[in-house]
Amino acid sequence: MADKDAKTAKPWGGRFREATHRSVERFTQSVHYDRRLARHDIAGSRAHARMLARVGVISEAEAAAIVRGLDEILAEIEAETFQWRPDLEDVHMNIERALAERIGEPGKKLHTGRSRNDQVATDVRLFLREEIDRLDGLLHDLQSALVAQAEAHPGLVLPGYTHLQRAQPVLWAHHMLAYFEMFKRDRGRLADCRRRVNLCPLGSAALAGTGFPLDRESVARELGFDGITANSLDAVGDRDFVVEFEAAAALVMAHLSRLSEELVLWASAEFGFVELPDGFCTGSSIMPQKKNPDVPELVRGKTGRVIGHLAGTLAVLKGLPLAYNRDLQEDKEALFDVVDTVADSVEVMAGLVARLAPREDRMRAALRGGFLTATDLADYLVGKGLPFREAHEVVGRAVAACLDQGRELADLSLEELRGLSPAVDEDVFEVLTPEGSVAARRTPGGTAPDRVAEALAEARAWLGRRG
Amino acid sequence: MADKDAKTAKPWGGRFREATHRSVERFTQSVHYDRRLARHDIAGSRAHARMLARVGVISEAEAAAIVRGLDEILAEIEAETFQWRPDLEDVHMNIERALAERIGEPGKKLHTGRSRNDQVATDVRLFLREEIDRLDGLLHDLQSALVAQAEAHPGLVLPGYTHLQRAQPVLWAHHMLAYFEMFKRDRGRLADCRRRVNLCPLGSAALAGTGFPLDRESVARELGFDGITANSLDAVGDRDFVVEFEAAAALVMAHLSRLSEELVLWASAEFGFVELPDGFCTGSSIMPQKKNPDVPELVRGKTGRVIGHLAGTLAVLKGLPLAYNRDLQEDKEALFDVVDTVADSVEVMAGLVARLAPREDRMRAALRGGFLTATDLADYLVGKGLPFREAHEVVGRAVAACLDQGRELADLSLEELRGLSPAVDEDVFEVLTPEGSVAARRTPGGTAPDRVAEALAEARAWLGRRG
Amino acid sequence: MADKDAKTAKPWGGRFREATHRSVERFTQSVHYDRRLARHDIAGSRAHARMLARVGVISEAEAAAIVRGLDEILAEIEAETFQWRPDLEDVHMNIERALAERIGEPGKKLHTGRSRNDQVATDVRLFLREEIDRLDGLLHDLQSALVAQAEAHPGLVLPGYTHLQRAQPVLWAHHMLAYFEMFKRDRGRLADCRRRVNLCPLGSAALAGTGFPLDRESVARELGFDGITANSLDAVGDRDFVVEFEAAAALVMAHLSRLSEELVLWASAEFGFVELPDGFCTGSSIMPQKKNPDVPELVRGKTGRVIGHLAGTLAVLKGLPLAYNRDLQEDKEALFDVVDTVADSVEVMAGLVARLAPREDRMRAALRGGFLTATDLADYLVGKGLPFREAHEVVGRAVAACLDQGRELADLSLEELRGLSPAVDEDVFEVLTPEGSVAARRTPGGTAPDRVAEALAEARAWLGRRG
Amino acid sequence: MADKDAKTAKPWGGRFREATHRSVERFTQSVHYDRRLARHDIAGSRAHARMLARVGVISEAEAAAIVRGLDEILAEIEAETFQWRPDLEDVHMNIERALAERIGEPGKKLHTGRSRNDQVATDVRLFLREEIDRLDGLLHDLQSALVAQAEAHPGLVLPGYTHLQRAQPVLWAHHMLAYFEMFKRDRGRLADCRRRVNLCPLGSAALAGTGFPLDRESVARELGFDGITANSLDAVGDRDFVVEFEAAAALVMAHLSRLSEELVLWASAEFGFVELPDGFCTGSSIMPQKKNPDVPELVRGKTGRVIGHLAGTLAVLKGLPLAYNRDLQEDKEALFDVVDTVADSVEVMAGLVARLAPREDRMRAALRGGFLTATDLADYLVGKGLPFREAHEVVGRAVAACLDQGRELADLSLEELRGLSPAVDEDVFEVLTPEGSVAARRTPGGTAPDRVAEALAEARAWLGRRG
Repeated sequence: MADKDAKTAKPWGGRFREATHRSVERFTQSVHYDRRLARHDIAGSRAHARMLARVGVISEAEAAAIVRGLDEILAEIEAETFQWRPDLEDVHMNIERALAERIGEPGKKLHTGRSRNDQVATDVRLFLREEIDRLDGLLHDLQSALVAQAEAHPGLVLPGYTHLQRAQPVLWAHHMLAYFEMFKRDRGRLADCRRRVNLCPLGSAALAGTGFPLDRESVARELGFDGITANSLDAVGDRDFVVEFEAAAALVMAHLSRLSEELVLWASAEFGFVELPDGFCTGSSIMPQKKNPDVPELVRGKTGRVIGHLAGTLAVLKGLPLAYNRDLQEDKEALFDVVDTVADSVEVMAGLVARLAPREDRMRAALRGGFLTATDLADYLVGKGLPFREAHEVVGRAVAACLDQGRELADLSLEELRGLSPAVDEDVFEVLTPEGSVAARRTPGGTAPDRVAEALAEARAWLGRRG
Repeated sequence: MADKDAKTAKPWGGRFREATHRSVERFTQSVHYDRRLARHDIAGSRAHARMLARVGVISEAEAAAIVRGLDEILAEIEAETFQWRPDLEDVHMNIERALAERIGEPGKKLHTGRSRNDQVATDVRLFLREEIDRLDGLLHDLQSALVAQAEAHPGLVLPGYTHLQRAQPVLWAHHMLAYFEMFKRDRGRLADCRRRVNLCPLGSAALAGTGFPLDRESVARELGFDGITANSLDAVGDRDFVVEFEAAAALVMAHLSRLSEELVLWASAEFGFVELPDGFCTGSSIMPQKKNPDVPELVRGKTGRVIGHLAGTLAVLKGLPLAYNRDLQEDKEALFDVVDTVADSVEVMAGLVARLAPREDRMRAALRGGFLTATDLADYLVGKGLPFREAHEVVGRAVAACLDQGRELADLSLEELRGLSPAVDEDVFEVLTPEGSVAARRTPGGTAPDRVAEALAEARAWLGRRG
Repeated sequence: MADKDAKTAKPWGGRFREATHRSVERFTQSVHYDRRLARHDIAGSRAHARMLARVGVISEAEAAAIVRGLDEILAEIEAETFQWRPDLEDVHMNIERALAERIGEPGKKLHTGRSRNDQVATDVRLFLREEIDRLDGLLHDLQSALVAQAEAHPGLVLPGYTHLQRAQPVLWAHHMLAYFEMFKRDRGRLADCRRRVNLCPLGSAALAGTGFPLDRESVARELGFDGITANSLDAVGDRDFVVEFEAAAALVMAHLSRLSEELVLWASAEFGFVELPDGFCTGSSIMPQKKNPDVPELVRGKTGRVIGHLAGTLAVLKGLPLAYNRDLQEDKEALFDVVDTVADSVEVMAGLVARLAPREDRMRAALRGGFLTATDLADYLVGKGLPFREAHEVVGRAVAACLDQGRELADLSLEELRGLSPAVDEDVFEVLTPEGSVAARRTPGGTAPDRVAEALAEARAWLGRRG
Repeated sequence: MADKDAKTAKPWGGRFREATHRSVERFTQSVHYDRRLARHDIAGSRAHARMLARVGVISEAEAAAIVRGLDEILAEIEAETFQWRPDLEDVHMNIERALAERIGEPGKKLHTGRSRNDQVATDVRLFLREEIDRLDGLLHDLQSALVAQAEAHPGLVLPGYTHLQRAQPVLWAHHMLAYFEMFKRDRGRLADCRRRVNLCPLGSAALAGTGFPLDRESVARELGFDGITANSLDAVGDRDFVVEFEAAAALVMAHLSRLSEELVLWASAEFGFVELPDGFCTGSSIMPQKKNPDVPELVRGKTGRVIGHLAGTLAVLKGLPLAYNRDLQEDKEALFDVVDTVADSVEVMAGLVARLAPREDRMRAALRGGFLTATDLADYLVGKGLPFREAHEVVGRAVAACLDQGRELADLSLEELRGLSPAVDEDVFEVLTPEGSVAARRTPGGTAPDRVAEALAEARAWLGRRG
């Protein structure tokens, strides 16, 4: 008889002659993860019920009973006393059934003019809107930490790298602001994504709209949506916003992974450019001396996870006919994991950036080797009339000679430098220092101190404007 | 001596003592694909040269010689008479070397204040901006074809599906407009992406900016950019826009794959909802009767390819330290393939949609089976006072009974229907027809003819406004 | 002081001056999921302890105390009374600390000559070996269900499709056996993967081996491994087996997704080739008539998820320097999810296949349209002397003519058929029936009943041999 | 009339009333890439023709004419004088049509009992078998280069790293052999994959087998296959072997990417552990001093590309119904690109490894800092009776004290060390040297010189046996 009961328990059981197979119930139910949407589901149901009353489909008293019942259920859910039932499949049916058990007949009217298809789409959009806003705030904190790092060490110079080879000196502040820019773009992408998320699909019903005279616009307004979706067939099967968010999140992670890679490098004995705080590292179970940069390593690793979810979600969507297909249930666990992974990663990285201690001595030592001012010397020769391509060749040969002799460019005498070009003068030595090199790069967006100060001021202002 | 020559051929050979190994030359060169950027590379170089003259770094005569030389080279490239040299690595060095060979010393001054790092970033952005605009136009054409299909068959009804089970009747026009919405979102995403693409990195030089007094803003204006990038370290290593475009493209493909799946289904003997034009199908080498829907099959398949490129590009970017790393060279082939795949797919699909011939007889036949108006009956009972959840249960049992007897809902007598609820009246039969069902769904975004007519008018207007 | 306590709690705390930051503890701990490895972790520790005693590093009494303590801990874990502590990071440290608290000093000796690096690699390998064996058994059950389906309907014919267009008649049994072959390959891949999984890394220690005189071979034997890993640096960073398993799992899912797609098609009103059991379907919250093929839809959807995990894991591994990096912690959640997803999918699909009810009437009806025997007619003409390419052309034109007249090939008169070629004889009609067509395809691996009977016998025998 | 001609040109044109649309022809044709299979296609056709004669379907003279014709065509293809026609779609039809034009009627008989479906599956398998063998050889060369590097520097010690923090000293040879092991596993996976590749699908025809009395086994033998595929429906739609190869290739790339990351690190000024040969590096267009490790950077980047192709191919296969679908055409470009990318990467990396010059001075300097022998000290204390967990704690505190004082463990006096434990003796200093540390790690697979010598001998022997 258990089977019979299970069968009749289903809100769609009328047409069925056999109970859901136990293995199928376990396989198809989603309540163990989609209950995360309960708050949003109830918000949507409240708005739906009030509207049903406004347009006369149910009575005001019925709507009030529904809203009251939902509020009670939400309170239980938040107190973790609510009894979730896997045999009721999902968050929607668990709540609707609980409502009917509590308030009777009005509860059975809540689903009028609605389907789980538009309901779940609404829930996920409400959830994601909130998460985007939260992530935006966390990115703000991370950007603030980067700006603070930049401001804390205004004149600090370190080697800039391309191909992980020392290239040209750059300001620490300039380096921090490079990441500021990346996260600024990320926030722009999230804002664009939010506009497409924030539309209300309620009223699309199963796939074709409904015959009940719903007031879709008022529901959308009550739920804080910017508007309603335009086509019911599209609305119930649309998960573009999940993919778009995951792609934006994957880029956030890509940026974090680049920063992580640099922190791992900088924390190595070989670079030694930063000291990571003990509280952000862990040790080894066997090697007593180890202090490992676990946080950036994990963030870097978690980037792969988010890339995977993005590829996976797209693979889920590929080739599905209209309108809703059960495959779409697979959007949620990936989305939840992406949301959590990115938020946690941004948050912990903001904490780490705020506590970074750059080691000026190691940076300064690193600036001494590697011919970091070779471009400056070539540019100097251009100033003296050599075509750039020839200046490059001449300096390249000088570097090769220095390498043979174990010397640096700054070690060359004026006479030796004049061997490169007779036009070389005393002032050449100014351009061969890290400070001289940095100061010269005054193009907008360049690493010269005044340029970076401007960029820093603009970053502060942007953070203030944008919040 | 070949080695010596090869060595000295490199524009960066000064510091090197050994020629590039032949296998390395082959492995690292990119000219066989990046020459696709030649037009954009030359546009960037022309603007750079003119600016160098404006700010006094080179003379007006030198700039004129450079521009003239570049124009000649471009003409040769377009005439396919230009001699590309793999030993010169890439499109940039091929063109710069050719310029120097033609015009001598001024050609060696072109690269002043510039690096391949900011140069290639500029080229790819110019290229992608153009491709986004082209793709936007192709999507416009596809949307127009969908709208035309919708307009051509205003009253045509077919079964709407969820879970590939017949669900509720919908208008053909409504179905076409569902895809219109998807591609509208796609164009929105591409427009957002374009804003982030259309910034000029020139002047970032290798990674730190340059000491030459470049006028970045004027170069950006001349090249049609909306502005300049803000941080040199970020600008040379930023490939966000490639990922963002690929993600937007993957969603375009996901939408095309859904349409393709439906066309494959509809063209099957079992559905038979459309006749595909012979010119868009191919046959079998062995089975004489076959007429295969190759175009939608291939489009569906190519969706996987674009998903793969997106995942691959993100994997390339993961964990790269600042600023430029050679790994970034791997962005281009994927991007080119995505650009071509998506553009070709959209274009061929627009042609196919324009030629689709819906088969009303088969659709009508399909509407007869499957209890497509069961929801309408439940809604009707709600109108007579039953709570929705009970109405659903009652109709479900009626469907089960019909299944046992091999009947449809419309076959039931008034008396039998009154067995469901005594409130049932003669007017019930109106809601049990496909036309009645469709007409009832008058919520905004629903499939009722007047709603769809509004949506169609709005779609036409949008296409007119947006172009 | 809480911080101080937390700090000293860490088994590696000696070198540290600051407690782990709370956010970092939460971010880096893995015990909420890696405790799934507890049983394997304890098995490994038991074997390690016994061996330490055998080689004289600890006393027999100490080893006995350790083993006893571990047994107690395992009992608590299985009874779910064990207190897991996130501040102890992972399953390994939770168990080691609990052991020390219970048995004192001997517990502090367990980790001699061992590191978490080789320990976790051992645990994951033990876990995966067990899961491979379980999955192999589930695939056996699925294959058995396919064979039983084949045997239950020996003469049943349905249309075979290419491009979802009717192509040639095939036996239902032949179709079932196509999937049998796929899962047979899958089991072969899993067996190959298992060989590479089943090697013991214990004794590799942190990265370089250890100075304690461990007997690696005996530990490996006790744990059922086939042998030991060959290089310590490789062994602690090797996650090839995770990727290899995930790739094999992705192919299992790809096969299941193909079967799922077919079941979704076959369960549609348009095909109607199978009736899915009510117990394996669910209904709609709004449409009373719906009976949806949720199980195959979900399985199809879950395929995307596994593809994503595979891509993600590879992205994690990319570019990691030797030996162990914390990024590798990210292997486990993906692996666990793949293991569960694939096992559950195979299991539920075996149940569904076992209950499939093919509908002969619908298959027979479908065989009547679509010119399924056109190839047979062409082959017949080849038998009468026409070159195949001409026979193909001739039959193609006959099909075109039939299409215009709304006829099938079997409707043509002998006279009309002789219009194709004067050599046509009465016996042509035999080849134009589904049965005649199927019977003709007697090449090994073909769909002729005797060939399929042979294949079925071989399949049964293989299942018997392989288990 | 061009259209008419184009139409009749198609080998399947009989049933069609309209020529293929130009855009469709361009979109669907594959000859621009699948002609790479020409040699294999012709090998398959030759074997098929000879067999057709053996079983009496065509005459010996016809078979001879076909083989002669095919040989001529192959000669033209190899001489690049063959005229490929996109309107003939693919490599198969181009060759068959050319054959018919040359030898007349026998050419039209070649396709008897065959379809492009089994033909292309055969071609790809022949192609891939050859490429696997080639890749196996390239991996052999790379392993040989690693072994040679190991042998060339038998006593060289460098810091081993975990988390990119100095961990314990290891032998250079041990490090090289870690990669040897990875590529050994890769070759094992490729060998397993080859067994599943090397089965002949010819005779499966379109999907159901054929009525002609083909001798499948003899064709398979002639083509060097190990056997024939077992089920025709499966055989024409099976692309498992493509995915399996791509997954194995992705792991090869993952290994190469790890080696690449290390080479990039080691070539940095900060590590300086190797000097890369000038011939394997390139310079900068702007910075005269730069010598960039382009080869490992590109190899690392190309890893993303292969991961992407793998994910993409799986996404293509997902959800395809049986048997052949045109989506499968999308397997080839990805496969070709993976084959080329992996082979080129392995080859160039073998060249680079062979030329690596380790810098002992820099390694030795690095061994001086970082407390690399802390584990040895802890192990020493265990030897003196401390439980490992306490020894770890004691040494951890000693490291912390040294850090405060800017000292290394080896700088501590015997007296100071006795402060850790009174049991410390003079012999403690032996274990605190890199050589002592390395020598101690004598577990099988450990880094002790005698263990590594054994491993090296085994590696050489394996290479000799395996070829």
